Amino acid sequence: MLKIGVVGCGYWGPNLIRNLIETNRATVVVHDQDKSRMEKVKKRFPSVGLADDYSELLKTDVDGIIVATPVTGHYPLGKQALEQGKHVMLEKPMTSSVAHAEDLIRLAQSKNLVLMVGHTFVYSPAVRKVKELLDSGALGKLLFVTASRVNLGIHQKDVSVIWDLAPHDFSVLLNWLGEKPLRVSAVGRDYVQKGILDVAFINIEFASGAIGHVEVAWLAPSKLRRTVIVGSKKMLVYDDTQAVEKVKIYDNGVTIKDPETFGEYQLSYRTGDITSPRIDTYEPLSAEMSHFLDCIENGTTPHSDGVHGLEVVKLLEAAEQSVKLGGLSVELV
Amino acid sequence: MLKIGVVGCGYWGPNLIRNLIETNRATVVVHDQDKSRMEKVKKRFPSVGLADDYSELLKTDVDGIIVATPVTGHYPLGKQALEQGKHVMLEKPMTSSVAHAEDLIRLAQSKNLVLMVGHTFVYSPAVRKVKELLDSGALGKLLFVTASRVNLGIHQKDVSVIWDLAPHDFSVLLNWLGEKPLRVSAVGRDYVQKGILDVAFINIEFASGAIGHVEVAWLAPSKLRRTVIVGSKKMLVYDDTQAVEKVKIYDNGVTIKDPETFGEYQLSYRTGDITSPRIDTYEPLSAEMSHFLDCIENGTTPHSDGVHGLEVVKLLEAAEQSVKLGGLSVELV
Amino acid sequence: MLKIGVVGCGYWGPNLIRNLIETNRATVVVHDQDKSRMEKVKKRFPSVGLADDYSELLKTDVDGIIVATPVTGHYPLGKQALEQGKHVMLEKPMTSSVAHAEDLIRLAQSKNLVLMVGHTFVYSPAVRKVKELLDSGALGKLLFVTASRVNLGIHQKDVSVIWDLAPHDFSVLLNWLGEKPLRVSAVGRDYVQKGILDVAFINIEFASGAIGHVEVAWLAPSKLRRTVIVGSKKMLVYDDTQAVEKVKIYDNGVTIKDPETFGEYQLSYRTGDITSPRIDTYEPLSAEMSHFLDCIENGTTPHSDGVHGLEVVKLLEAAEQSVKLGGLSVELV
Amino acid sequence: MLKIGVVGCGYWGPNLIRNLIETNRATVVVHDQDKSRMEKVKKRFPSVGLADDYSELLKTDVDGIIVATPVTGHYPLGKQALEQGKHVMLEKPMTSSVAHAEDLIRLAQSKNLVLMVGHTFVYSPAVRKVKELLDSGALGKLLFVTASRVNLGIHQKDVSVIWDLAPHDFSVLLNWLGEKPLRVSAVGRDYVQKGILDVAFINIEFASGAIGHVEVAWLAPSKLRRTVIVGSKKMLVYDDTQAVEKVKIYDNGVTIKDPETFGEYQLSYRTGDITSPRIDTYEPLSAEMSHFLDCIENGTTPHSDGVHGLEVVKLLEAAEQSVKLGGLSVELV
Repeated sequence: MLKIGVVGCGYWGPNLIRNLIETNRATVVVHDQDKSRMEKVKKRFPSVGLADDYSELLKTDVDGIIVATPVTGHYPLGKQALEQGKHVMLEKPMTSSVAHAEDLIRLAQSKNLVLMVGHTFVYSPAVRKVKELLDSGALGKLLFVTASRVNLGIHQKDVSVIWDLAPHDFSVLLNWLGEKPLRVSAVGRDYVQKGILDVAFINIEFASGAIGHVEVAWLAPSKLRRTVIVGSKKMLVYDDTQAVEKVKIYDNGVTIKDPETFGEYQLSYRTGDITSPRIDTYEPLSAEMSHFLDCIENGTTPHSDGVHGLEVVKLLEAAEQSVKLGGLSVELV
Repeated sequence: MLKIGVVGCGYWGPNLIRNLIETNRATVVVHDQDKSRMEKVKKRFPSVGLADDYSELLKTDVDGIIVATPVTGHYPLGKQALEQGKHVMLEKPMTSSVAHAEDLIRLAQSKNLVLMVGHTFVYSPAVRKVKELLDSGALGKLLFVTASRVNLGIHQKDVSVIWDLAPHDFSVLLNWLGEKPLRVSAVGRDYVQKGILDVAFINIEFASGAIGHVEVAWLAPSKLRRTVIVGSKKMLVYDDTQAVEKVKIYDNGVTIKDPETFGEYQLSYRTGDITSPRIDTYEPLSAEMSHFLDCIENGTTPHSDGVHGLEVVKLLEAAEQSVKLGGLSVELV
Repeated sequence: MLKIGVVGCGYWGPNLIRNLIETNRATVVVHDQDKSRMEKVKKRFPSVGLADDYSELLKTDVDGIIVATPVTGHYPLGKQALEQGKHVMLEKPMTSSVAHAEDLIRLAQSKNLVLMVGHTFVYSPAVRKVKELLDSGALGKLLFVTASRVNLGIHQKDVSVIWDLAPHDFSVLLNWLGEKPLRVSAVGRDYVQKGILDVAFINIEFASGAIGHVEVAWLAPSKLRRTVIVGSKKMLVYDDTQAVEKVKIYDNGVTIKDPETFGEYQLSYRTGDITSPRIDTYEPLSAEMSHFLDCIENGTTPHSDGVHGLEVVKLLEAAEQSVKLGGLSVELV
Repeated sequence: MLKIGVVGCGYWGPNLIRNLIETNRATVVVHDQDKSRMEKVKKRFPSVGLADDYSELLKTDVDGIIVATPVTGHYPLGKQALEQGKHVMLEKPMTSSVAHAEDLIRLAQSKNLVLMVGHTFVYSPAVRKVKELLDSGALGKLLFVTASRVNLGIHQKDVSVIWDLAPHDFSVLLNWLGEKPLRVSAVGRDYVQKGILDVAFINIEFASGAIGHVEVAWLAPSKLRRTVIVGSKKMLVYDDTQAVEKVKIYDNGVTIKDPETFGEYQLSYRTGDITSPRIDTYEPLSAEMSHFLDCIENGTTPHSDGVHGLEVVKLLEAAEQSVKLGGLSVELV
């Protein structure tokens, strides 16, 4: 039985706690600066322990810490935990700057500790199914991906729509492609609150020639959670608003015949079957919690490790910067 | 009864001829360099006259000329017709360069002739309905528009997906907004045929602060013809693939209360009724043909006049150039 | 603060308990013959009291009893509670026979006690919205209603698909029409388990000339919860599987002009706007619980009172009987 | 080159003529009592011959006659043609009575002539694809079929919604099942024009235990052309309003394990992939015309021969009769 400390009992924390408890593999201690929140958690989950003081908590035999505070808390709280030799999972986005993320990665490596970021979508059955299809080569070479994540959403006060919504798509894109992006360009607007972007269109270019195009907005008439993958062999639509048929594979394509033989490019179009594979129905957060525990027990590297979280933060920073530069490309060294 | 010459009897010409004849307001003479095509047209529409020679056709009492050849023919054929004092309608896109379009506009103005461009969508019932809603102020200030026009389409050999598909969206956008764009940036790829873009993501910025975002692709698993308008009061989805409910108006919005009174921005969200107004069902091309005849008869300026066509060509050129510059913004003076 | 006893802590009971507690208007005591179930409930809702013995519970100052056992328990447990002077809510369907339902109604009336049946849909925001539209006359005279409630569902072992699924639609139909049905005919099959219908098509005829057509099946490829109302002025679709646009009103209709004037019937067709009104998003069960407490406090008659529940049971019995008779109409006196 | 006479140039005739001409396998002569209609056809299809007199036409070397008049003309015109030794295709429904249909079948058999009925859906790519799937056993034993064919449609003046719309579904059902129905029951209403049913719900029972359930209405807010097949192995949805994904196969099912072994029924549920097979895109009427010509040339029996057409008429008569009997089952001997 592992012992896990959860720091931050706001909106997201209780979901983590519930899923941790349901693994039956960990006891849970919670900490929040707001005691009334801890009491609320205790009422709902009578089995959890309460820790009034974070530093004291780190001195106990707790194995790992999950930080679910606002993003500004991720770096200091995570750092303190790593320094005390605790495995750490930070909620997404990992940190509010690249420098901070890099610092935590170094620290975790030097101490040989697990550093994971809570990019939950990476653990969702649909995203994993698509990853499987990509890795099997069924879609051919990945050409481009477009993702829309929009609806009339709650405007954050201190963070742009890019930092609020794009971490999901960036994380999924990086997971699927398995390659680092070269550069980012983005256009956005702050229609409702001056200084806080509420809509953005982001292009990410990869060395393989692939493009990722991400649209995020807090201003949209209807909810879209739609990602399209165009591969050289097949195409795929992943629509997260669908209860069934979340993933559809289109056996559609263009075949280019050898130009040497024919004197000129010969294109042939194929429209084929559409298949919607059965997708498992487990809760992504449950898989994420189990994965964190597995990594602690086995010393393995998480699918969404610190390096993955850092890449997402790099993309977020670059996208914001590009908007400020009026859409100029920003290189990701 | 007007007399109209239609030049070019390929894929599109017969549609124009049919709709012209059905107005019962014009007799039609056709010309094509390929005589077999003319004969085919004659067989289908026994009432049309045939003209073997374009120059000779222009010497007759024909009132107007419609040019439906490939885009490279628009400029020379249109110019010749204007010089002979004929009213002219050119298919879209107007010309293959800004310079050519400007030349034709000057010529038509100096001779006081109608110069129209066949941007058919501007005459479609759905687009006109949206224009009406925008002009009435029902949507409030137009904030941004996103348009997707994609499917597994026929790859053109000599023209990019931007020149093939984007004229529709550019024309509609300009018609709706009624303002000139400031700058364009675009990212694209030529996955199938080297040198011919088959996917592009285009941003258009306007002086009012509005953004137009247009996605065009010949490579996509499913057909999308979806345009979203986010206004400050209401939002709207125009989905041209729907047989019913082509236009949906969402009474959704964000209201910002006066920050002076409350010390800080107070946002309130509104989710309201969704209304799909009844849309007339006439054929857009029929309305376009009638409009051309009206303009000739009354000396009025077409909704899609030469200046409108020129603005579209400017956007096309700029978008292509931006892709070549790796996404750099291109100013539209 | 009222005191409510909940009897039966299986699948549905905890939902009732949660919603009761959240009203903050009642304390809750639970009873189940299976003590382990009671303990589970206690763990999840520490504030509830436990009653080992039902007869003892009825001797306490509990104000009302909610019976959430399998249907065979509804009659004896409800009767006992009424005899002890307690207000009663029975889960749907009310009883397994018309005779039992009538007995309970008599008893409740003689003792002036609330007798309610848990037809939750009657309390759902969408069903109430439709009721409002019907009562306002916006749809005109109700001509017919078709309802489909199907998907690959769990086969009950002791009750047919009619008793399992049709109570929802019957209750909603009766609520909307506000008139008693004349007769029922039904065709069904027991494909999977002999003797247990798993698909049925049911017609209900009303004195006004209206028909209700209900399709229920445990065997269907995709989930349907779709009800169509055809009124003489407007038509309406209520699709409970939709997250937004659950209710759509079609301003479509046929107008018959006076035959005397025109010598023959003159029909004119109207296709108009489609409107999807905003629907409140409260939980139906929460409204149902509040309604039960209101009725106890104010002595008012529930929307889904015993008479309503009885009408549903009559329809269930008649539909089953009609299937056995090979589809013969069964009169509902 | 065959020679085909088409009788009746109203709404449907020109579609037949166009498709006949496009086979390039037949010359066409047309006849209509209304000469202005024949002239209109001649203008549109200059290659057709005109026949002023039907009896004279039958004396020529015409090989086959297609009757596309209102249904009352099918019997006399078809009979006359058969008597003159001509192959005959009658539009659907075949005749307005069973007796007439039987008479024509006898006549055609005695003269060894082709007698076909224009049940076009039987020749549509989607219906043929489903037939193929059924015949291959992929769906298992066919349990039941539900079909909805409704929208705000044009009310016929002299024929009910059953005779107007149900022939399509009856024909498809019979084609798919390949077995004769035992009995029919139906409920309907004549809301708009007294005496002319405008909505009906029809149940058809087969000896195999299968049920077909057909809903037809001229009064419905939105267009439905949806047929669901529940097989013992898989299920299928055929939605004719969809441009893509017209047919979807659901690998969903219930498996009953042997009750002898387990003491009681053991059910297991399977939810699997959903596949939408690519469907050919040819025009059904074109396939139908080719099939008629094939049958004439090769002396083969049409898929939709007189016997098929008769079965449809029997169902239509029985359904109408059942409505008049208040829903009583009508046996089909």
